[in-house]
Amino acid sequence: MNKKRISILGSTGSIGVNTLKVVEHLKDQIEIIYLSCNRNVELLIKQINTFQPKAVSVLDIKSYNRLKHKFKNNDLEILKGREGLLEISSRNNIDLLMNGLVGAAGMEPTLNAINQGIDVALSNKESLVMAGSIIKKSMEKSGAKLFPVDSEHSAIWQCLIGEKIEDVRRLILTGSGGPFRERALNTFNDISLEEALNHPNWDMGKKISIDSATMMNKGFELIEAYWLFNLPPDKIDIVIHPQSIIHSMIEFKDSSIKAQLGIPDMKVPIQYALTYPRHIEAPWERLNFFNCKDLTFQKPDYERFPCISLAMESLERLGTSGTALNISNDYTVYRFLNKEIKFTDIAKINKLAMRNHSWIKEPTLEEILMLDTWIKEYVYSF
Amino acid sequence: MNKKRISILGSTGSIGVNTLKVVEHLKDQIEIIYLSCNRNVELLIKQINTFQPKAVSVLDIKSYNRLKHKFKNNDLEILKGREGLLEISSRNNIDLLMNGLVGAAGMEPTLNAINQGIDVALSNKESLVMAGSIIKKSMEKSGAKLFPVDSEHSAIWQCLIGEKIEDVRRLILTGSGGPFRERALNTFNDISLEEALNHPNWDMGKKISIDSATMMNKGFELIEAYWLFNLPPDKIDIVIHPQSIIHSMIEFKDSSIKAQLGIPDMKVPIQYALTYPRHIEAPWERLNFFNCKDLTFQKPDYERFPCISLAMESLERLGTSGTALNISNDYTVYRFLNKEIKFTDIAKINKLAMRNHSWIKEPTLEEILMLDTWIKEYVYSF
Repeated sequence: MNKKRISILGSTGSIGVNTLKVVEHLKDQIEIIYLSCNRNVELLIKQINTFQPKAVSVLDIKSYNRLKHKFKNNDLEILKGREGLLEISSRNNIDLLMNGLVGAAGMEPTLNAINQGIDVALSNKESLVMAGSIIKKSMEKSGAKLFPVDSEHSAIWQCLIGEKIEDVRRLILTGSGGPFRERALNTFNDISLEEALNHPNWDMGKKISIDSATMMNKGFELIEAYWLFNLPPDKIDIVIHPQSIIHSMIEFKDSSIKAQLGIPDMKVPIQYALTYPRHIEAPWERLNFFNCKDLTFQKPDYERFPCISLAMESLERLGTSGTALNISNDYTVYRFLNKEIKFTDIAKINKLAMRNHSWIKEPTLEEILMLDTWIKEYVYSF
Repeated sequence: MNKKRISILGSTGSIGVNTLKVVEHLKDQIEIIYLSCNRNVELLIKQINTFQPKAVSVLDIKSYNRLKHKFKNNDLEILKGREGLLEISSRNNIDLLMNGLVGAAGMEPTLNAINQGIDVALSNKESLVMAGSIIKKSMEKSGAKLFPVDSEHSAIWQCLIGEKIEDVRRLILTGSGGPFRERALNTFNDISLEEALNHPNWDMGKKISIDSATMMNKGFELIEAYWLFNLPPDKIDIVIHPQSIIHSMIEFKDSSIKAQLGIPDMKVPIQYALTYPRHIEAPWERLNFFNCKDLTFQKPDYERFPCISLAMESLERLGTSGTALNISNDYTVYRFLNKEIKFTDIAKINKLAMRNHSWIKEPTLEEILMLDTWIKEYVYSF
């Protein structure tokens, strides 16, 4: 059997590290061709030694130089900077690209791979949020497919196997509600960075932890589901499920509901994206129904989490609305992580950026990329 | 589009009535060719007038005579007795036979239809429990299929759509635990008929309500799952789930779990068996996650419910063990319903009947049918 050749963008991040854990136990079936990271060269070196990729790309130039020095007597190809990332994501001698990049930076690499006819395992939800219409057009042209890696979209994907999309009454995205599901709304202005980073169920990167605390993450998932599954926004609901055991559901037209569940472990959806349509024996922890918490459900609270409403609004507006919301959120979260703005400012500024940017109905890739300058400046004006 | 032609055995029972409710809203897609009942001629007459079957069969001779008299000037074909039921189940001018019969009496009609190459929507779990190996052989020969109607097996069937059975780690049959899940074990001798008939979640016939109270029902489902899905007994687990919202689950080898859920309403699995593999728009109640109970899980208690262990034992013994267990249970429950034996006698007598009957490794249909005489006598000797 030929091994499946994969490339991992963001290999030292949360998704990248978990992907390599999956690859480790499937090493007779999968080989790593390319890796890319931002600046964590120590971890990248270990990954290079273990997985022997053909090339790597390092975004941060200082880190690139350190790696280059370390491997000076080695024939490993080492690329650098944004252009290195774009180059590596455009190569077509692989079977699958795992895009584990965080934020808007992940969008072009997704598009590069799709343009080359390479299937993309997509953890970077910003790709579809920012450029859904462009990516869908490119997919139609090249025939490449998107394999969702988000636990929610993977759940829906798994539940849709063998089913017809026209039999679906609605998708039900579950969400834990994040760390502030029950916090008094009048104290939201005082939310500290440390509190916001402390997610109850999932161990994730910082950016995604904040997006989970604001529930912007759930809003982006709504937008992503819209593009992935071709369903109108009124057929995609959100249900709060604090235990994160049910990862999402589909209700069919006969009222039968299918759910995918398990312990919160990103390795499950990651492996499924790598081994689709098969469920291959895996060594990790299993859900034990006899010591799992009671499963509960609640309505989402749009007053508490205005970012969900912003996502819905962006699906009504379409065009560059999702793009603007996404770029703005990258900068507002960055500023919150730097303690420059308050937790509640994230949604406020996102809303203004989405509503006040120069909206374009059918943007080109260039127009999407150009939005960045204005929005960055706008977000930093607060 | 040609309508799907179906036949319903046990049309005035719980499954039959619900099947006709489904047919009523799908009348542009399904037509009723045959109906059969035991003695409820009043309801059968209404069903005849509404659904205009080509023939009906009535088991009870007095009831047959009343119907015959009522329809004397009508060209409706009316069959009678056991031979009428066997005749109607052998006719091959239909697309699907719904077997909603209760107890061992349902086994031969299933086999008749399968032998004719007719797919069977199977609510009568006794068919597989009594004659699993014979039915499987007949299915291989004729190519006919079984469509499970039990909510548990329908759930597993729905979760298996598009999946490979070799990717399954285990089936998880859920069960409510019945009305005596938390009753003090030392009061089980005092359980009254009225208490045993009072199932917390499902509105069912009397026989099945008692089987649910003893959990013999869950044991039979275990055996049925063994035959339906070709999995060894150690890959079929039982999890107590008192709310009956999750109807059963599959755990795959990658620890991903798929579940089928919804309100407890037999019309959902019945419709799915009639419209498989489609989920067609239906008018009934939907599960509302915002007012549903918390979902909880418990270990099954084999001391409290020895009938589950008997079912497991029958899968180790195979041969006529399931047959004997099933026939015995038909009579013990009948005697309990007549207040002739105690609740706890059901399991005790079933166990003795299974262990003490003349076991045959590969029984013929005749040998299975002949077991009845000895077991009936044996059960009535207590």
